[in-house]
Amino acid sequence: MKREELYLGIDLGGVSVRAAVVDAAGHVLGQEKHRLLSKEPPQVAEAVLRAAKTACGAAGMPFSEMKGMGLGVAGMIDREQGLVRSAPTLGWRDVPFIKLLQARTPRTPLWIASELSVSAWGERAVGGGRGVDDLIVVLVGSNIGAGIVMAGKLYEGASGSAGDLGHVQVMPNGRLCSCGQRGCLEAYAGGQNLAAWARDDLRIAMAAARAAGERHPAVGRKLIDLVGEPEKVSVAAMEKAAHEGDDLSRRLLEEAGRLLGMALANLVTMLNPARLLLGGGVLLGSPRMTRAAIAGVDAHATKSSRAAVQISAPELGEQAGVVGAALLARESLSVAA
Amino acid sequence: MKREELYLGIDLGGVSVRAAVVDAAGHVLGQEKHRLLSKEPPQVAEAVLRAAKTACGAAGMPFSEMKGMGLGVAGMIDREQGLVRSAPTLGWRDVPFIKLLQARTPRTPLWIASELSVSAWGERAVGGGRGVDDLIVVLVGSNIGAGIVMAGKLYEGASGSAGDLGHVQVMPNGRLCSCGQRGCLEAYAGGQNLAAWARDDLRIAMAAARAAGERHPAVGRKLIDLVGEPEKVSVAAMEKAAHEGDDLSRRLLEEAGRLLGMALANLVTMLNPARLLLGGGVLLGSPRMTRAAIAGVDAHATKSSRAAVQISAPELGEQAGVVGAALLARESLSVAA
Repeated sequence: MKREELYLGIDLGGVSVRAAVVDAAGHVLGQEKHRLLSKEPPQVAEAVLRAAKTACGAAGMPFSEMKGMGLGVAGMIDREQGLVRSAPTLGWRDVPFIKLLQARTPRTPLWIASELSVSAWGERAVGGGRGVDDLIVVLVGSNIGAGIVMAGKLYEGASGSAGDLGHVQVMPNGRLCSCGQRGCLEAYAGGQNLAAWARDDLRIAMAAARAAGERHPAVGRKLIDLVGEPEKVSVAAMEKAAHEGDDLSRRLLEEAGRLLGMALANLVTMLNPARLLLGGGVLLGSPRMTRAAIAGVDAHATKSSRAAVQISAPELGEQAGVVGAALLARESLSVAA
Repeated sequence: MKREELYLGIDLGGVSVRAAVVDAAGHVLGQEKHRLLSKEPPQVAEAVLRAAKTACGAAGMPFSEMKGMGLGVAGMIDREQGLVRSAPTLGWRDVPFIKLLQARTPRTPLWIASELSVSAWGERAVGGGRGVDDLIVVLVGSNIGAGIVMAGKLYEGASGSAGDLGHVQVMPNGRLCSCGQRGCLEAYAGGQNLAAWARDDLRIAMAAARAAGERHPAVGRKLIDLVGEPEKVSVAAMEKAAHEGDDLSRRLLEEAGRLLGMALANLVTMLNPARLLLGGGVLLGSPRMTRAAIAGVDAHATKSSRAAVQISAPELGEQAGVVGAALLARESLSVAA
């Protein structure tokens, strides 16, 4: 019996690297997750290879038998040049990462794409977007981004920054975003920013209550009871408080969902996808915000584009990246061959 | 000497059909424009063939020697099924137009796409987007739409409605749009809507002036002097009045440009094109609105996507459609062969 061809998938974030041995059906046969001890590119390249080899060990396969390795990196990528143009969480700009890695494993065919792209590719191959040629995968966490598959191909744009949904403008002269602009979607609906928004509001409400000699703030009372102090506010706590009737939490989750929904509606109108997958930690943790976002798409996308799109959730969870990276490498090798 | 292979390009709008014989370099060797006397699909198919044959005559070539015919239709198209899903200016829904046409000319290979798509394809082949793989062509007239080329391929979405830029939402609960939504870009920046907006404002200002016993309205005086009565307002008149200092015209052209710029900025951020062509009658007629739109992209697109995109104008004018349709047919035939 012919031995099955296996590929490695790598998911490289700012804090850790995950490696997996993946078969043609997208099954993970062995995997490994390392914390990154250094963010220097050569050390990261070593860490990637260590994780890859450990994953091979876990799968009971020698590294030398891997047909190729695909990498998804959290950042903007120049796929053809194998360049990481910008990876904020690693502090990288224009790092020729494929070259660094290739020097350490000359015989392994390598591919690279953004983490969002490989995740979308994984969902498209074996997850919530199986077989869908026009697919958008939106992940809402601290950052907000989209992986885009169009006409069956991954689309990353002219310089690798397509899908930067977190920085579309949803509020003229709105809240300041970490990118320096005002009114970006991420300034409202990104997890940390949304929690910070609630903290700001809570502090104002508590100061007003103190000044008026009241025991309780006029809004956000259930939220503050739940977390104890404003610093402890998280999206999960807001969802819980909202469920218990907290006005401030409800208002902010629904407003963040509404703004996300508006941005998604415009995306659906412009790109007319067949499927939209909504995931990421913030949406996983807040059904309320997810509902508001979908209601926004219902209300604001054109009828014809709304009718053409099915909205559901990603299915691969945190393995989407490694699975997608490995399957992208597999596909690229078979196309090139 | 081998005779050059020639293709026909057809541009079918709601009022007229244009046909041209086009060579490989995109030159028009002969053309014809008919007004449509009927909008019934069989009659339109006859009119298309008549125009095509007249264009062949003008080029001094028999129709039978044409290698194929490409059609651009103002509407939403299902390219693979040869179906016009929706063409509002023709009053069509789900018309199998390629079938109707094929029955009348069984030996001519036929292709169909939206008018916006074929125009974008023409600009990409021999116009302002020559050789650019990631190109967006935005046309602002009475309607606003975008033709999208990504990774060198035309992209029309899962059901043919990609590029529907006129119906992205730019103003929560804003002006009513003809599509039934509120706050669509087209409700502000589409030519007829923009002129109607100025007319509404002028009527209010004139009524207020009359009520106060004033001879002149507080705003829009130069505009009303220029056109005589509110009914005569056009975008061209607004541009002229703005140039002469008219406050109302300046305000509205700049606001329409600002909203267009915001929508374009979000498009550039999401799709990261290498080139954006801005054209159509309204922008051609209003340098002021065009400047405001570009300023909006400068201000609101992410730095990396703004740096990657060059903004300029289409070059083929009203021949973009026929040229693009013919070149798309040429390309499709050579790919299929």
